[in-house]
Amino acid sequence: MESNGKNSLNDGTNGKVGTKGSTLWVCELVFRLVCVATTLAAAVVMGDAKETEQVPLQLTPSLPAVLYPVTAKSSYSSAFVYFIIANAIACGYSIISLGGAIANRGRRGKLAMLIFIIDELMLALLFSGNGAAAAIGNVGENGNSHVGWNKICNVFTKFCSHVKISVILSLVGALNYVFLALISIISLHKKDT
Amino acid sequence: MESNGKNSLNDGTNGKVGTKGSTLWVCELVFRLVCVATTLAAAVVMGDAKETEQVPLQLTPSLPAVLYPVTAKSSYSSAFVYFIIANAIACGYSIISLGGAIANRGRRGKLAMLIFIIDELMLALLFSGNGAAAAIGNVGENGNSHVGWNKICNVFTKFCSHVKISVILSLVGALNYVFLALISIISLHKKDT
Repeated sequence: MESNGKNSLNDGTNGKVGTKGSTLWVCELVFRLVCVATTLAAAVVMGDAKETEQVPLQLTPSLPAVLYPVTAKSSYSSAFVYFIIANAIACGYSIISLGGAIANRGRRGKLAMLIFIIDELMLALLFSGNGAAAAIGNVGENGNSHVGWNKICNVFTKFCSHVKISVILSLVGALNYVFLALISIISLHKKDT
Repeated sequence: MESNGKNSLNDGTNGKVGTKGSTLWVCELVFRLVCVATTLAAAVVMGDAKETEQVPLQLTPSLPAVLYPVTAKSSYSSAFVYFIIANAIACGYSIISLGGAIANRGRRGKLAMLIFIIDELMLALLFSGNGAAAAIGNVGENGNSHVGWNKICNVFTKFCSHVKISVILSLVGALNYVFLALISIISLHKKDT
């Protein structure tokens, strides 16, 4: 109880937390901070992915090839745009939920419930964005000869590195949302058993 | 308690469930059954997606175009293969977890905890598979003129319909895993408050 002194986080069955609960609460804050950082970085790195290269272009067989500037940009792919929006939404929500988690101090209640529900939606949003970006990144890396989609990463190496880094960053953020869901359930489970 | 008679599902604080808990348990079984059906259907429909069309091919400008058989197949795309594997794993797990949920009868404990953890992984797996398949399906539908990837759905209409249907089916399965996570937390939350 609050009257117990040192530990300001409470114990018992009235929706408050004990020492184990406070450890989980600290873990939750750390995970939310990591989510803010990784999703922000993923959105920025993907949004910033732009590269212009001089590509040889053969106009007629009798003339030598001319160099033509071609640009690869994340906004050219709807999957990458979706990825950026998903990470931006997750980042914004991670900041708000961090504030909510600090205010809630690990207690169970309607706020914790609401946070859990939106956490699940963020998890789904981030993993679908990751899947989409990784799939397009994979075609960019290897191409698909069956449908005539040529690989582009042999030309746009910097662009593809940006894509890879942002997918890894976003994956870390998405996995953090899995951990946050586990913290929620462990927190309730510990009290329950 | 079990000695209460008619209701075989228990009430109280010893990890057993009451009337509300039994309603949640029935909902859980229904959601898991839907997961089995949708992920199985998604994997089968995508795995079965194959179409051969006669595409006109201009060998030389002086000769008329010849018709050449071209095949579109889900196994030609690593994103679609990943989607099939993800749905097959989720389907297999859904069957096992349905058995586990029936055996557990809505009680809280280590089995419920384990099921929740794997549910979260399935949610992540399905959403990433959906994102990947939807992204490639989108390029197939609209192409990407910036990198010279031509759309294929104007030729392979049946193949693309299969892809769309399987993504929708898998999305329903994935959303069911969100509902299952909510059931787990509501179930614990109800007892907690």
